[in-house]
Amino acid sequence: MAASLRLRGAASGLRFWSRRQRPAVASLAVVCSRSMASKTPVGFIGLGNMGNPMAKNLMKHGYPLIIYDVFPDACKEFQDAGEQVVSCPADVAEKADRIITMLPTSINAIEAYSGANGILKKVKKGSLLIDSSTIDPAVSKELAKEVEKMGAVFMDAPVSGGVGAARSRNLTFMVGGVEDEFAAAQELLGCMGSNVVYCGAVGTGQAAKICNNMLLAISMIGTAEAMNLGIRLGLDPKLLAKILNMSSGRCWSSDTYNPVPGVMDGVPSANNYQGGFGATLMAKDLGLAQDSATNTKSPILLGSLAHQIYRMMCAKGYSKKDFSSVFQFLREEETF
Amino acid sequence: MAASLRLRGAASGLRFWSRRQRPAVASLAVVCSRSMASKTPVGFIGLGNMGNPMAKNLMKHGYPLIIYDVFPDACKEFQDAGEQVVSCPADVAEKADRIITMLPTSINAIEAYSGANGILKKVKKGSLLIDSSTIDPAVSKELAKEVEKMGAVFMDAPVSGGVGAARSRNLTFMVGGVEDEFAAAQELLGCMGSNVVYCGAVGTGQAAKICNNMLLAISMIGTAEAMNLGIRLGLDPKLLAKILNMSSGRCWSSDTYNPVPGVMDGVPSANNYQGGFGATLMAKDLGLAQDSATNTKSPILLGSLAHQIYRMMCAKGYSKKDFSSVFQFLREEETF
Amino acid sequence: MAASLRLRGAASGLRFWSRRQRPAVASLAVVCSRSMASKTPVGFIGLGNMGNPMAKNLMKHGYPLIIYDVFPDACKEFQDAGEQVVSCPADVAEKADRIITMLPTSINAIEAYSGANGILKKVKKGSLLIDSSTIDPAVSKELAKEVEKMGAVFMDAPVSGGVGAARSRNLTFMVGGVEDEFAAAQELLGCMGSNVVYCGAVGTGQAAKICNNMLLAISMIGTAEAMNLGIRLGLDPKLLAKILNMSSGRCWSSDTYNPVPGVMDGVPSANNYQGGFGATLMAKDLGLAQDSATNTKSPILLGSLAHQIYRMMCAKGYSKKDFSSVFQFLREEETF
Amino acid sequence: MAASLRLRGAASGLRFWSRRQRPAVASLAVVCSRSMASKTPVGFIGLGNMGNPMAKNLMKHGYPLIIYDVFPDACKEFQDAGEQVVSCPADVAEKADRIITMLPTSINAIEAYSGANGILKKVKKGSLLIDSSTIDPAVSKELAKEVEKMGAVFMDAPVSGGVGAARSRNLTFMVGGVEDEFAAAQELLGCMGSNVVYCGAVGTGQAAKICNNMLLAISMIGTAEAMNLGIRLGLDPKLLAKILNMSSGRCWSSDTYNPVPGVMDGVPSANNYQGGFGATLMAKDLGLAQDSATNTKSPILLGSLAHQIYRMMCAKGYSKKDFSSVFQFLREEETF
Repeated sequence: MAASLRLRGAASGLRFWSRRQRPAVASLAVVCSRSMASKTPVGFIGLGNMGNPMAKNLMKHGYPLIIYDVFPDACKEFQDAGEQVVSCPADVAEKADRIITMLPTSINAIEAYSGANGILKKVKKGSLLIDSSTIDPAVSKELAKEVEKMGAVFMDAPVSGGVGAARSRNLTFMVGGVEDEFAAAQELLGCMGSNVVYCGAVGTGQAAKICNNMLLAISMIGTAEAMNLGIRLGLDPKLLAKILNMSSGRCWSSDTYNPVPGVMDGVPSANNYQGGFGATLMAKDLGLAQDSATNTKSPILLGSLAHQIYRMMCAKGYSKKDFSSVFQFLREEETF
Repeated sequence: MAASLRLRGAASGLRFWSRRQRPAVASLAVVCSRSMASKTPVGFIGLGNMGNPMAKNLMKHGYPLIIYDVFPDACKEFQDAGEQVVSCPADVAEKADRIITMLPTSINAIEAYSGANGILKKVKKGSLLIDSSTIDPAVSKELAKEVEKMGAVFMDAPVSGGVGAARSRNLTFMVGGVEDEFAAAQELLGCMGSNVVYCGAVGTGQAAKICNNMLLAISMIGTAEAMNLGIRLGLDPKLLAKILNMSSGRCWSSDTYNPVPGVMDGVPSANNYQGGFGATLMAKDLGLAQDSATNTKSPILLGSLAHQIYRMMCAKGYSKKDFSSVFQFLREEETF
Repeated sequence: MAASLRLRGAASGLRFWSRRQRPAVASLAVVCSRSMASKTPVGFIGLGNMGNPMAKNLMKHGYPLIIYDVFPDACKEFQDAGEQVVSCPADVAEKADRIITMLPTSINAIEAYSGANGILKKVKKGSLLIDSSTIDPAVSKELAKEVEKMGAVFMDAPVSGGVGAARSRNLTFMVGGVEDEFAAAQELLGCMGSNVVYCGAVGTGQAAKICNNMLLAISMIGTAEAMNLGIRLGLDPKLLAKILNMSSGRCWSSDTYNPVPGVMDGVPSANNYQGGFGATLMAKDLGLAQDSATNTKSPILLGSLAHQIYRMMCAKGYSKKDFSSVFQFLREEETF
Repeated sequence: MAASLRLRGAASGLRFWSRRQRPAVASLAVVCSRSMASKTPVGFIGLGNMGNPMAKNLMKHGYPLIIYDVFPDACKEFQDAGEQVVSCPADVAEKADRIITMLPTSINAIEAYSGANGILKKVKKGSLLIDSSTIDPAVSKELAKEVEKMGAVFMDAPVSGGVGAARSRNLTFMVGGVEDEFAAAQELLGCMGSNVVYCGAVGTGQAAKICNNMLLAISMIGTAEAMNLGIRLGLDPKLLAKILNMSSGRCWSSDTYNPVPGVMDGVPSANNYQGGFGATLMAKDLGLAQDSATNTKSPILLGSLAHQIYRMMCAKGYSKKDFSSVFQFLREEETF
C-alpha cells in the first residue's frame, strides 16, 4: 500500500512520499482503484480558501464527504455536488471516522474539537482526526491528549503552499503523530498534496512548519536588505542576485523568489507583489514561532525582529501584499 | 586572450571567469605560455595569512615578485625563494607597474597608498593597482580618485574564501573598476582564484562582498535559531535540516554549512567549530556593512542586529570559533 | 471609608491610594478598627515567596485566613499560627467570600479557578476574587467572564515590588475590574501594599504592569549600552551617569538603579547583582508583553528584542542575578 | 573669574557651570564688565540654523566677531551688523585666536580645519579652537592631534538643545579637552548656553552627547511601544503615563516629552509632531553612536535597532517630524 511507497531516509529517518518519486503513475491507479472499492466517507471541517480546493481533491479521488463550516455559504457548492452537509463538528464525527480539519486559528481548532458541539462529543473509537490548520504546537498536543482519551487518533498535518498549490494538488504536508498511523494519514493527504513528510510525535508537524517559515521570513528580509544595500552602493540588481546565488548568501528567497522587481519573472515581485503568501499570513506564523519560542525558552533574536517587521508592514498597508514586498517597505525613498 | 574566456551573462551583464567553465584546460596552457613570454614583475604588498599563499600562486604562474610587508619576517620566505624585497610601498611602485595589495583594514590600505612612503609617491603612469583587501567601499572610491589623478588605474577586488581556498587557488574575486581593465586584472587574479567576477564601477567589488556576507550572517543566525527552536519543540535535527532544505527555508547555511553538530560531516560544526570563518572576521565585515548602510541611509534591521550578535559573541569567547558557532551561543543550557 | 481616601486624578481619572498621601495615620486606625469589628475570613491561595509575606500582612490587620497551596509545607507556618488550611481552592471558596490568589503562571491561575477542584466549583454569589498573579491579561479577562457567570466578581491586581516590598508592605497594586468594587478590593490590598492604583476594566491591571516592565527592561538595557559605550569612549562612569541624569537620557534605570558598579550605593550593581529583580522574572514579564503584543497586533520592536536579550541572559548563567546585570552581560571582555 | 563659578562635583569630578547656580546675577555683571575691557575678536565658522543665534549671543556679550560660512548669504546679516567677514577658515585663524566652529558633519569639520584653506594653515600658537559640531569623537581626536602639532588647543563642545535653546541661550555644552583650558572655553560657551559641563579628555564631549542621545532614542521608542501596547490593551493614555511616571518605567520621554497626543501640553506630540528634534537629526546621531560602537567593539543591540527604526522613519516621510513621532509610525492602523 501507500506505506510501501515511502522513501526511507538514512540515519535521520526522513520519511516522505512524493508524486515525483512514485515508481509509476500506473501503480497509483492500482492503489486508487483498490481504495475505491472500500471508500468510506471522510469528514471535512473548514471550507475556506484552502479547505475548499483540498476537499475537492478528496472528491476527485472518490471519497464521499461529510461537510461542515461555520459559514453555511461555504458548504453550498459541496451540497450542490451531492456531498452531505451537517450542522456541527459533532455530527461530522458521528458520520465519519476519518476527519480533516482546516481552520484559521488555534481558537477555531479548539472550538471544533472541544467545543459544545465539537468533534469530541460524538467521536467514534478508532477514528483518525487530522488537523491541517497551522496552530500552536502546544495546542496540537493538548488536542491530541483529549482525542486519545476518547480512544481515537489525532495527527497534526499543517501544509506548506498556498491556494494555487491546494488547487493543483501540490501542497506539502508536515505530519506529526503516532508513526503507525502515518500510512493511513498519507492515504488521504496524498490526494491533496505532492509531499507528505513524517516529522515525529504530535506537534512536530506544526514545529517543522513554524521553523521553516521563521527561517524563510528571516532570509527574505535579509535578502531584501542585502539587495537594497547593494543597489544603493551601485550594484546592478540582477548581477548582485547572481553573485549572491553563486556564493554563501544563496537562499530560496534570493534564487527562487527574489523580492526585487526586474530580477526574476513569474514571482510576486514581478507583479507588484500580488498573489503569493501575504504579509499577514507571515505575521501570523511568526506569532506562532514567537509563542513556541517563549514556551520553550528558546532565544530567537532575528526571528523575533522579523515578526515585528511583518507586524509593522501590516500596520502600513502591506497586509495583503506578498511577503517579499518587504523590499518595497525598506526601500521607499526619502521624501525630502 | 583571457577576455575571450569571459562568460557573458544575459541582460544583467554578469561577467565571470571560472576554471570549471573554461572550454578546456589546454586553452589555459596556451594563454599561460603566451603570457609567460612577457612576464614583467608584479608588486605584492601584504604577505599575511591570505597574502602569503596568494603571492605564492602568482610565483607558480611564473611572475617575478616585488615584495613588501610592514613585518619584515613576512617577506623572508619570499626573499629566500629569490623574490625581490623592498622597504616601502613606494619602492614597490617604482619597480612594478602591476601591484596587488592585501591588507587587513581600511586604515592599512590608506597608509599603503597615500602614506608618506605610499604607492602614490612613486606610482608610474598606466600602472594597474588591485586592492584585494576587504574595506569600506567609500575608501576604495577615494583611493581610486587619487590613483586616477596620478594617471594610473585602481580596482577593488576583495576575495571570498579563506586561507584554504587561497592555498588551493579556489578564491572568488569580486572586482570593481573600469571595465576595460578587467581583462588585465583577470590575468593576475585568475592565477590566485577560480572565479573572477566583474561587478561594476570601483567599489562594487567591496559592495558585492559586503552584501553577500551580511546575508550570509543573517541566514546563519536564522538557521541556528530555527534549528534550535525545532529541536526544543521535539524535532530530530537531521530530519529538520532535510525538511528545511526541501522547503522555502533552504539556504547555504542550512544545506551546505549546517551549524548543528551531527547534521553534516566536514563542516566546522562537526569539529567543535574550529577552522572556517571566525566570528571576529564576520563581525568585521558586518561593521563594514553597517558603515555602508549608514553612509547610504539604507535600513538594515536584521543586518544591524546580526552585527551586534557577532559583536556579543566576540565578547563572550567565540571570537576565534567559526561563525556557525552562533548555534552554540544561542543554545547553551540554562544553569538552573 | 477607604474610597474617600482616593485621590481623584484630573481628566485621566487616575485613582490611587497611598499611605504617604493619607490625611493622617490616625484615620487609618479608625478605618481599621471599624473593619475589625466585622472582619470575616479571607481566602488566600498561593503561599510562595510573595504570597507568604502578603498573607502575613493580612493577618497583622486582623483578617482570619483560609489557606491553600499545592505544596502543603507552604501552609504549615500558617496552620501553626492558627489559620485554617483546606485541601483545594474549591474549599477556600466555600469558606470565604473574599479570596486573594497569588500564583506563578497563567496555567496555575486557570487551574486554581477553573480546575476540577477550582474556586468556581463552590464560589458563592457576590464573592470578591482578586488575582494578584502576573499573567496574560487575556487570561484575566477569560477568568473574569467565568467568575461573572457564577454571580461573583473578579479583579486582576498584579503587584510591583519584590519580596522585600511584600514584607515591608510597600507593594504597588495595579487593579483592573469593575470600578464599583475597587473600594472593597482596596480594603484588602491596602493591608499589603502602599499604593493601590485603579487602572480600568478587567485586565488593565495586568496591562499596566506589563507595559511598565517592558519599558523598564528597554530603559535598563539602553542605560547599560549607553554607559558601556561611554566608558569605552573614555568617560568616567559616575560623570556620565550625572550627565545623563541632567539630560534627556534620564530614566529610572540611570538615576535610581544604575547598572554600573561604583556609580551608586545600595543597588544590586553595588552588590554583584545579588537581590533585586531576577533576569528570569524579567524574561517572564517580557514573554507576557510579547503575547499581549501578538494578540493585539501591536509592534514592539525594542520590547521584543529586550525579551530575547533576557532570554539569552537566562541561557548564559544570569538567571538569578538582578536584571541590571545586563551591563555585565554586554561588557565581558574579549578573550583574545 | 569664570573658573571660580564652577561647581566641583564630588568623587566623579563633575564640573559644570549653570546660570541657575551662579551665586548672584551681579557677579556675572562684574565678570562681564571686566572682560569687556579686553575683549579681543572671536572667530565663528558655520552660521547655519544653530550657528546664527549662537554667534548673535556672543555679539550681545560684546565680542567682536570674525565670520566665515561656505554660503556667503549666511554672513550678510553679520556684515550688516558691522562684524568682519572673511573668505576662508584660514583667514579667520589669522585674525582671531579664539574660534568657534559649528558645522553639520565630520567631513565639513575636517575641511574647515585641515582643508586647503583651513584653520590649520594660519592658526596662531596658543589659539583656542572650540568645535561645537556633533561629529565622530574619533575625528575630534584626530583634529586635536593636528591642532596640537601647531601649538594650539582644540576642544570638542557639542551642544544639547535645538534652535530655540540656541536663541534663548539655554544650550548645554559638553566639553572635552585639556582641563586647564576649560575655564577659557567656559568664558565663551557661557555666553551661548546655560550649562557648560566638563567631560574629560578630547572626544569625551562628543561621547557624552552620543551616549545621551542614544539612550534618549531608545527610551523614546520604548515609551512609544509601551504606550501603544497599553492603549491597545484598553488603558487610558493619560492614566498609563501617570502609572509609568510613578513607577520604574519612568523616563524623560514619558514624563517630560510624552509622544502620545493628548497626554501632555506644550510638546511636539501636542502639535502634530512639528518643531522639536527631527527624526533625521536623531538618525544622524545614532549613526555616530553606531560608528563609535563599531570602533570600540561595544555591543549596542537596542541602540543599533533604534538607529534602523529612525532610518526607516526617514524613508517613510517622518524625516522632518519630531523624533517622538515614532509613536505615530508604530501606531498607524491596519488598512484592512
